[in-house]
Formats: sequence, C-alpha cells, structure tokens
Amino acid sequence: MTPIEFWFDFASPYAYFGALQVDEVAARHDREVVWRPFLLGAAFKATGMQPLTNMPIRGDYARRDWARTARGLSVPFRLPDNHPFASVVAARAFYFIEQGDAETAIRFARHVFALTFGDGRDVTDRALVLDIAAGAGADAAALAAALDTPALKQALRARTEEAIARGIFGSPFFIVDGEPFWGADRLPMIDEWLSRGGW
Amino acid sequence: MTPIEFWFDFASPYAYFGALQVDEVAARHDREVVWRPFLLGAAFKATGMQPLTNMPIRGDYARRDWARTARGLSVPFRLPDNHPFASVVAARAFYFIEQGDAETAIRFARHVFALTFGDGRDVTDRALVLDIAAGAGADAAALAAALDTPALKQALRARTEEAIARGIFGSPFFIVDGEPFWGADRLPMIDEWLSRGGW
Repeated sequence: MTPIEFWFDFASPYAYFGALQVDEVAARHDREVVWRPFLLGAAFKATGMQPLTNMPIRGDYARRDWARTARGLSVPFRLPDNHPFASVVAARAFYFIEQGDAETAIRFARHVFALTFGDGRDVTDRALVLDIAAGAGADAAALAAALDTPALKQALRARTEEAIARGIFGSPFFIVDGEPFWGADRLPMIDEWLSRGGW
Repeated sequence: MTPIEFWFDFASPYAYFGALQVDEVAARHDREVVWRPFLLGAAFKATGMQPLTNMPIRGDYARRDWARTARGLSVPFRLPDNHPFASVVAARAFYFIEQGDAETAIRFARHVFALTFGDGRDVTDRALVLDIAAGAGADAAALAAALDTPALKQALRARTEEAIARGIFGSPFFIVDGEPFWGADRLPMIDEWLSRGGW
C-alpha cells in the first residue's frame, strides 16, 4: 500500500494541525506517512495567492480559526511574531536529516511545529533549528555544514518544483493513492476515502 | 436559540453542497437556517481573490473536488458552461420572494441550486429564474416586474455590504451564534461546536 504524502510549509499553522492529526488517520488504514516540506511561496507565485495573514478580512478569519482549531484539539497555539516567515532553513534541514533517517527527520519536523506554533518561537533562527535537530537525534554539526550547500538548496528546490508540477498549491496538502486533498480539514474525507476505497 | 446564518453565492458549487447538508446539522440542534445570498465578487474585490475556476492550478483542483464531493454525497453534479457566472438575477429574486414568505424563498433557492449544479442550467436566464420561482410557489409576474427596481437592487446590495462588513469573504459561509465558519467542509465542525456549546 502506498504511503500518504503529507506536503506542507513549516510556516503554515494549518500544517501544524495537520501534522498533529495525520498519523491517526494513516494508522487506521495501515498507511505510512511521507513528510514533504516545500516552499509555499513558490506555489503562491504560480497561483496568484499570498499568505493568509497578509490578506484583508481573510487574515482576521484565519487568526481566529487557528486559535479556535487549537482550542478544539486541546493543543497549544501561539502565532510567532514573524509570521508569515520564510521556512527555508527548517525545510532544508529536514531534507538533510532525511537523507540519514526518515524517522529522525519526522521527529525533527514535529519539534519544529511544536516550538513554532505551540510556543511561538522563531525557526528562521539557525541556532534554534540546529538545537531542534540535535534534540531529534540528528548530527547538528554536519547539518550546520550542509545548510548552505548547493546540493541541499537544490534538494529543497526540486521538492518545491515537484509540488507545483503535481498541482500542490496549499498547505497542508495530502496525496492519497494519487488523489489530492487540500487542507487539514479534509482529513475526515481522507479517512472516509480510505475506508471506502475511493469513490 | 438563534438561527444558523447560511451566506452564499448562487454561482458557488461549494454552496450547492452546503445547501444540501446544512439542514441536517441544523435539525440535530433544533436550529433554523436563514438563507442569505450575496454577491461573492464584491467580497473578492475586498480580499483580492478571484473565482477559483479562473485561478491556475487551484481551478483544476476545484473542478476535481466538486465532482468528487458530489460522488461522495451521491448527488448529481454538472458545472454550467458559463461558470463562474453572475448570480445577481437569482439573488435578487430570492430577496423579492423572501419579502412574501421565507419558506418559499428557500424552496426557490434549492431549485436554483439543483438546476444550476445538478443539471448545469444557466440561471443568468431570467425566464428560467421566473420559471423556478413559479414552480416554488412565488408570484412570477410580480417578480418579473420587481427584478430591476431600485428597491430590489438595493436590497441585494445591502446584504452584500452587510456580508463584507461582517467579515464574510467566501461561499458558503456560516455564522453560528456569532461564530464564523467558512466552507461546506466545516459543517462537521459546526455540528461539534453546537454539540459542545462552543469552546
């Protein structure tokens, strides 16, 4: 059975909520989850969108909805002062760590989300990202040396281009047996899709 | 108990799905539903959005998602050739009919949605809108005479301005005890919100 692809930008609050819920859905159907950070800003250029928090009216709704969603899930939520921020350091770090071990990379990603949206920390700060990587069991010194290499930059760029080429325009975005689902609030639909074997 | 406000544009496929599902949620909590058509294009001007079908990548996803959602609900779906169309005639007709009787107006609205997105009919056609009105039990001759009057134009304009002033930027959009919910896929969250008495 193919894994559920979980595409996201580390700067996306809805991806934080998706990350907290996708495993339960996947486990119910004996599916693995492949985590795929990408740079949502590049997709926004392709679709003519911009970050929700920068949009009139929609930004106000989003802030209210994030806080409400967190209360509903009984998880902490604090929007970082620098939101929407560029998530390139965390995303590059993820792919570096994943080259060594996918589970370590996922553990790293969870910690990034928890600190970013649970505590409102600034994960554009390289020192913090390296700390998180070390805490997740990755080699922080090797990561520090790799962060600005052309190979790692290209790895993230390739994932972002893959996302856009496959029609991924938002975060989180799930691909299940080739079927695209946009938004954390579509996880119940994914659950039903897997239960019914599609429709 | 206050009714659930159901704001929508008659040209919105997601509103069609919302219209087919909102009653069940409302009935479970002994709530009435107040139907409130408005012109989404005016809200788009305020937020910098445009119709989904006109957006690169997002439009392709939307078309796939509408067809899939319809199959999942076992309801017919056919996107009219003229989509996205201006829904001003149907929306004005709704408010004219509602002045006489709200239940008749809701019946009219259901027929509009069924013909528009079940059969792909063109409800910018006044003759069709008058037929639907007559079929719902409204006075079609009186409606025909009223459609272009300043009073009816103003009634719709006022609702659209009210929507934007209240932060309504999409379709469908629900207000439940003052709490805003955007999207037909938030009906399960509304259900839970009403069950728990908010959170």
